[in-house]
Amino acid sequence: MRRIHVIGIGAGDPDQLTLQAVRALRDTDVFFILDKGEAKADLTGLRRDLLATHLTDGTYRIVEARDPERDRAAGGTAYSPAVAAWRSARAGVYERLIGEDLGPHETGAFLVWGDPALYDSTLGILEEVLDRGTVAFEYDVVPGISSVSALAARHRTGLNRVAGPVQITTGRRLAEGLPEDADDVVVMLDAHQAFRRYAQEDIHIYWGAYLGTPDEILVSGPIAEAAPRIERLRAEARERKGWIMDTYLLRRHPRD
Amino acid sequence: MRRIHVIGIGAGDPDQLTLQAVRALRDTDVFFILDKGEAKADLTGLRRDLLATHLTDGTYRIVEARDPERDRAAGGTAYSPAVAAWRSARAGVYERLIGEDLGPHETGAFLVWGDPALYDSTLGILEEVLDRGTVAFEYDVVPGISSVSALAARHRTGLNRVAGPVQITTGRRLAEGLPEDADDVVVMLDAHQAFRRYAQEDIHIYWGAYLGTPDEILVSGPIAEAAPRIERLRAEARERKGWIMDTYLLRRHPRD
Repeated sequence: MRRIHVIGIGAGDPDQLTLQAVRALRDTDVFFILDKGEAKADLTGLRRDLLATHLTDGTYRIVEARDPERDRAAGGTAYSPAVAAWRSARAGVYERLIGEDLGPHETGAFLVWGDPALYDSTLGILEEVLDRGTVAFEYDVVPGISSVSALAARHRTGLNRVAGPVQITTGRRLAEGLPEDADDVVVMLDAHQAFRRYAQEDIHIYWGAYLGTPDEILVSGPIAEAAPRIERLRAEARERKGWIMDTYLLRRHPRD
Repeated sequence: MRRIHVIGIGAGDPDQLTLQAVRALRDTDVFFILDKGEAKADLTGLRRDLLATHLTDGTYRIVEARDPERDRAAGGTAYSPAVAAWRSARAGVYERLIGEDLGPHETGAFLVWGDPALYDSTLGILEEVLDRGTVAFEYDVVPGISSVSALAARHRTGLNRVAGPVQITTGRRLAEGLPEDADDVVVMLDAHQAFRRYAQEDIHIYWGAYLGTPDEILVSGPIAEAAPRIERLRAEARERKGWIMDTYLLRRHPRD
């Protein structure tokens, strides 16, 4: 039986790998690395470095494939269907990788930034491949340090306040409004800096980009003061590196 | 200057330590272990085992202290003041530990189950100790695999659905109602199995106890079927071990 590990590799700091993840890497014959194009070439390189650090040359193979492009222009109600079509195209790629590049008694692995449980499509895609029924495999999941945990640690803050809730959401949703019933809100996948809309509110923001890497940038403070600074630093970094990965925590009524 | 590491040690599986956490353990002279009474003696033992696995005997000290009892009977609006009083009493204990048991150029560490950013009071207490001004120190935070990530990994599910939010909350809050604006809800610190209130709703539950340990129990399914089973298994396990640590994900409208 083919086996697959879905391995959370942390938010960017190679030392945020768990011992369990290192063990899973060493148990793997074939690593599937999906290339999201030129802009993400750095990320592919970081994954290759991670393997070179923990594994012995010649004991594993890397298979790279091109990740199908998503129609990022599709917004609003078109979002979920666009994502579904993209996931289906990716399922075709994964199906081929597992069926053709992994021997029937071998173990493959997908390396996921952060934690496979948060805003990552790998698990959904593997289930879709299994549903198609053309290739059989078992899989397990190795949890990873999410960018959410990494952000909180670098800012030395909790995500929740005493006995309070925290909501993790997307930039797209934040643009529609703050959650009704959570005053601590972590925002991921925000390409449009939706926090700017709330710059006049009583909010403390904890922002971080490239967390755990040498390029890490941290900003925190009352949102009215911090937002313009984040906007400037973000634009500069994006220009310099060609891509950005950032996340932030909004804390409403910070003195409560 | 005294230094302190606040180290997330994962949800229970010793292999969920990160490489960064192992490095922080090795950088530590004095480990502070707060004992929460007989019921949690297992947890104290697990932490001692973790140290014995990764460190050389004689290179570190362990200082144990009794954690002040919290008035758990105080509910409702009394909750936050009761917690505040308890945190203040703990701050007194931490202040004494850091001031008396850590040399002026030594490094101490607090080991936190899961991730220090989620429902843990260590960071708040350290800030309170610093505010008192009687003992000076620097501190940093090493993020850990939370029980939330461990739960999702063992059930091989995401926490959020495509582009959807997820709320992390407490059993106490869940007892008051489901969140308005998140259909995926992770519940922690639920001593009273608040999920039972929703057993007739269209909800899929993913539950786990003692995650990552040999005692791990997992149950998932439609809540109407799973709730009685969880209730039984939870009571049996609690009786057998004397304590329980569990968490769960509620997914409303699971077929959406």
